Amino acid sequence: MTADDLYSRTPRVYVETALAQSAVISLAEGQAHHLRQVLRLADAAHVRVFNAGDGEYAGQLRFEGKRGAAVLINTQLRLPQPGADIWLVATPLKKDAFDMMVEKASELGAARFVPVITDHTVVHRVNSERLIAQAVDAAEQCERLDVMQFSDLAPLATVLKSWPTDRRLFVALERSAAPPFLQVLHARPATPATPLAVLVGPEGGFSAAERAQLLSLPFAEPVSLGPTILRAETAGLAALAVLGGFLQGHGV
Amino acid sequence: MTADDLYSRTPRVYVETALAQSAVISLAEGQAHHLRQVLRLADAAHVRVFNAGDGEYAGQLRFEGKRGAAVLINTQLRLPQPGADIWLVATPLKKDAFDMMVEKASELGAARFVPVITDHTVVHRVNSERLIAQAVDAAEQCERLDVMQFSDLAPLATVLKSWPTDRRLFVALERSAAPPFLQVLHARPATPATPLAVLVGPEGGFSAAERAQLLSLPFAEPVSLGPTILRAETAGLAALAVLGGFLQGHGV
Repeated sequence: MTADDLYSRTPRVYVETALAQSAVISLAEGQAHHLRQVLRLADAAHVRVFNAGDGEYAGQLRFEGKRGAAVLINTQLRLPQPGADIWLVATPLKKDAFDMMVEKASELGAARFVPVITDHTVVHRVNSERLIAQAVDAAEQCERLDVMQFSDLAPLATVLKSWPTDRRLFVALERSAAPPFLQVLHARPATPATPLAVLVGPEGGFSAAERAQLLSLPFAEPVSLGPTILRAETAGLAALAVLGGFLQGHGV
Repeated sequence: MTADDLYSRTPRVYVETALAQSAVISLAEGQAHHLRQVLRLADAAHVRVFNAGDGEYAGQLRFEGKRGAAVLINTQLRLPQPGADIWLVATPLKKDAFDMMVEKASELGAARFVPVITDHTVVHRVNSERLIAQAVDAAEQCERLDVMQFSDLAPLATVLKSWPTDRRLFVALERSAAPPFLQVLHARPATPATPLAVLVGPEGGFSAAERAQLLSLPFAEPVSLGPTILRAETAGLAALAVLGGFLQGHGV
């Protein structure tokens, strides 16, 4: 049995505190509650703790009083490892669809979620605390080391105006002559060292004005995700899956 | 404005009856109810009707009595066009996750969903009527011409025993040395003419015995979907997105 097998069922806890062997890390009250009441862990249970800067460590849980908990840190299991630098730019959606998109984007390795308001956007607000909690949950579940970050909700035009021009922006366009996403990636290969982003529209797509603007941007590359008309959340996930698959499949 | 733009917002209705110009097609009571009460369409409203065998036609709605409706068929909008022959083999999941997987698999173009019981499967039944309704809804929404089909729920071992050996089976394996999915597809390209299938495991993955069996099958090809541990439904969708992207990106 490898260390990987041994620890693969051990609960993972994201902590922002610096991690090092023999350190004792206090957990937030919410985390302590989750480990004790939801996962029903006993005192001295094995856990894993992780963050992007320090990687992942084995640890042992110590409950403290009625509500507190700490982790005594043991050996390092994984070194820090930067993920690909991919942003998902997408519009808020109705609750279930948006929850799903945020969770799956985290699983599929997006580094940052940039929520934007477009001409056909229906939902005009996001709950930032809830989003962050979802991203932490997803990171704990899917074994990534970092946690997906969020930008503030802003109009698409504002985001595009201050766009970092070295970041390639793949724009998923339906009902268009845009070339298949993988064709675009092969023609000018993306690498994990490249800053990348995917933009998907809301239900009903981009407005004519938005399409015209997007097509005029030097850093934007229109792509097609296939012959069907995907729901907004499906488009976001399909784009991340294809981009992640490309980066992985080419060993870069 | 092209015909595509003109009709892109027109409701689509799946009908099994043969379609031909000037024919009058009676709709099922549930469809009539949906068009009248949910979409609030008026008599003589424009609709589109479609099926895999006949393609898609423009039509006009005729309400009949309190509960009936028919469509007077007008010009053909799309010729029949076979999709890729892709099966998704996956285990039933809790309601929300399974609903999501079925809907997104339809959108991403799976021709057939094969529900299987594996050693770590928790949910041991499916509601066939509900599944079919979901696949019809998704087809109407995402503009595919055919409707995803369902096999009966069966143990994985039974499905593998009667597997059509000319159908390539890509098995998503986590925590393994399986090569990236796109690498496997490039090494031996899949085409839409090839019968293909993707198998994803349940939460917790395949058992050791299942892994050993899967790795021994001549038609099974293990693949990796990336460095993170994906939830079952995410794995199914990521695999379909990558496979669809490959088929589309290579113009085959």
